[in-house]
Amino acid sequence: MIQIAILGFGVVGSGTAEVLTENRALIAARCGEEVNIRYILDLRDFPEHPLGNRVVHDINVILRDPEVSVVAEMMGGSHPAYDFSRAALEAGKSVVTSNKEVVATYGAELLELARSKGVSYLFEASVGGGIPIIRPLQNDLACNEILSISGILNGTTNFILSKMKREGVAFADALAEAQALGYAEANPAADVDGLDAARKIVILAALAFGVLVSPSDIRVEGISHITPEQTAVADAMGCAVKLIGHTERIGDRVLALVGPHMVPESNPVHHIEGVFNGILVDADMLGRALFYGAGAGKLPTASAVVSDILSAASSAGRPSLPHWRPAAPQDLANPADRRCRRCFVLEGDAAAAEKAKAFFGYDSFAVFGNGSFAFLSRPMTEREAGRALAESRKTLRWTMPVLD
Amino acid sequence: MIQIAILGFGVVGSGTAEVLTENRALIAARCGEEVNIRYILDLRDFPEHPLGNRVVHDINVILRDPEVSVVAEMMGGSHPAYDFSRAALEAGKSVVTSNKEVVATYGAELLELARSKGVSYLFEASVGGGIPIIRPLQNDLACNEILSISGILNGTTNFILSKMKREGVAFADALAEAQALGYAEANPAADVDGLDAARKIVILAALAFGVLVSPSDIRVEGISHITPEQTAVADAMGCAVKLIGHTERIGDRVLALVGPHMVPESNPVHHIEGVFNGILVDADMLGRALFYGAGAGKLPTASAVVSDILSAASSAGRPSLPHWRPAAPQDLANPADRRCRRCFVLEGDAAAAEKAKAFFGYDSFAVFGNGSFAFLSRPMTEREAGRALAESRKTLRWTMPVLD
Repeated sequence: MIQIAILGFGVVGSGTAEVLTENRALIAARCGEEVNIRYILDLRDFPEHPLGNRVVHDINVILRDPEVSVVAEMMGGSHPAYDFSRAALEAGKSVVTSNKEVVATYGAELLELARSKGVSYLFEASVGGGIPIIRPLQNDLACNEILSISGILNGTTNFILSKMKREGVAFADALAEAQALGYAEANPAADVDGLDAARKIVILAALAFGVLVSPSDIRVEGISHITPEQTAVADAMGCAVKLIGHTERIGDRVLALVGPHMVPESNPVHHIEGVFNGILVDADMLGRALFYGAGAGKLPTASAVVSDILSAASSAGRPSLPHWRPAAPQDLANPADRRCRRCFVLEGDAAAAEKAKAFFGYDSFAVFGNGSFAFLSRPMTEREAGRALAESRKTLRWTMPVLD
Repeated sequence: MIQIAILGFGVVGSGTAEVLTENRALIAARCGEEVNIRYILDLRDFPEHPLGNRVVHDINVILRDPEVSVVAEMMGGSHPAYDFSRAALEAGKSVVTSNKEVVATYGAELLELARSKGVSYLFEASVGGGIPIIRPLQNDLACNEILSISGILNGTTNFILSKMKREGVAFADALAEAQALGYAEANPAADVDGLDAARKIVILAALAFGVLVSPSDIRVEGISHITPEQTAVADAMGCAVKLIGHTERIGDRVLALVGPHMVPESNPVHHIEGVFNGILVDADMLGRALFYGAGAGKLPTASAVVSDILSAASSAGRPSLPHWRPAAPQDLANPADRRCRRCFVLEGDAAAAEKAKAFFGYDSFAVFGNGSFAFLSRPMTEREAGRALAESRKTLRWTMPVLD
């Protein structure tokens, strides 16, 4: 019998209890052991809930109980989630979490602490909701050098952008519908400004490159300024505008960023619609692989938490944890050095577009009625793009990187 | 130091050596142990190869060496691959394989033998090439009841169907190009007739439902009879024709089959083009997840083999293997009982199509110049479809199931 404690009985916490209860027999049959929820830590009481008698209000009850081997932290926020996670690891208990804020900020330290105690610190649910991505990256791709990871890491913004593309509506209208459907919070800033995706991409970057960058140290751009004109231009270019978290190495530095990208049809990420997430991994031996599914939601996220609980229990005594080191300033690549194709919208007509060709090296262009033309350039850095703009003497309306 | 032996130094075998050599340092750093290729078993010699001095021609050399803990079988075919795998397990060595033929036929027996010996029998590379799917199904989805698995499991046929859709060419022409590009064998029967996909879907069905069905006991239909007219009708219906391996439970019986399906745009499998594979898993807690990537090829497949080698080594002493039982006749569902939407092409005009509506319950239809009309029906079994055809007194040109 695996004895666990749930910290935080909100959406994911109660979903975790639901998964463990609904599929109790199946889990026991597959894992050879039953999982028992011994404690639920929450400020509230849940007298009507079947597990209401497991509720405690003092973390020390859990920390002091030697029977509890796994603590599932689903409180959200940094404190006291971080402090309780630390205390549980210190007490020799494995910790699993859906809390991307804690992993993105304190992951390196908590992994090190877990390693020193011989227990696990697992966080499959912190990125991509229920989609298996953390464990596949660590286990299935262990023999690969990761070249890049790019993906749709936030369902709310993908719902908004999908709606803008499909119906040509403005950002504010698409956001209002997302809020009406419960896909966006009343205060949607963490989603639409890219912070949620930023926390997830630094976790993926750490898994890929072993260096944990602070979300506040990377370039993060949201989608609130995306216009229907931009989604229409993307369409004309055979692309979709997507909010992409991206990480790659430039030399021996790590680049991580979040921002709107033009994604052509040839990239499977192009076709990910609505609240779904998809993470594209490019690895030296495997090539490209996409992991797609529900990036949020009660039961999908809980499914990932429970998979971590089972993994922590089955690897007891010899967990295999990644080595992360907090990034130093010299570990960070300058986003201006990223080389990729870029969409440019410049002022001018077809003749001007023809003249720009030599500077930007594109294959085809589109001219719009409003005195502008657009094309997808050859791969170039921001510096090279600036030089091409200056030398071609064209006026930039806007530009956006392409995710090929 | 993990000592391994490679059985069969063909494409995947030599790729496995390449992955282990190229990424030796990275693997050692992540796993804490180096992997050494102690033997390569092949009928041939490879005097020019850097590992040519590891070649042996007698399996007993490997079986008798107590240092060898993992045997990687990449010989292809059932014999002697099965016999050598059995012997290696009997000798207390873990076996990993890319050989879907052996896993689909002897998997239940070899898993049982491995369990009795306390070693691993792993086969990530047998389905989906390099795509992580077997381990995620077992570990990440362990707390889920699998509802269905459907996917593009064969890259050759997907290349052919993609080309037929994109260019409107006939099957024979698309096959010829696939052969010219090296995507199809000179004798393409195993791919185009669906046998390769059949072996893979029975492996996935066993992972989902614990029952190993023989590939020869399931309904398998290939793509050689697919016409440009059919791909055009699919297009008109907003679908693509894809060769799909599908498994689900009907009552307490297991359905597994391979055949052409109409896949609507709303299904992410629709967008998988060319030689790529994609496997869609529907699970009770996680919902839908797609695993996409290179379904074949030297290095992608080798990447999966090496991930199994590392997994076998790290779980030495306590492997966690699935329980499979060979299917009895009463375990098999009748494919005629499968309930799904279906595309029908019937003879008649718009007036006839309107009259058919009540029998088939569709939303919209398309009328073609050749005296036929098409629609996607409500979900129905084959029996119900036959009844609807009889009662509506319409003449069937052809029908195809829809993968929603």
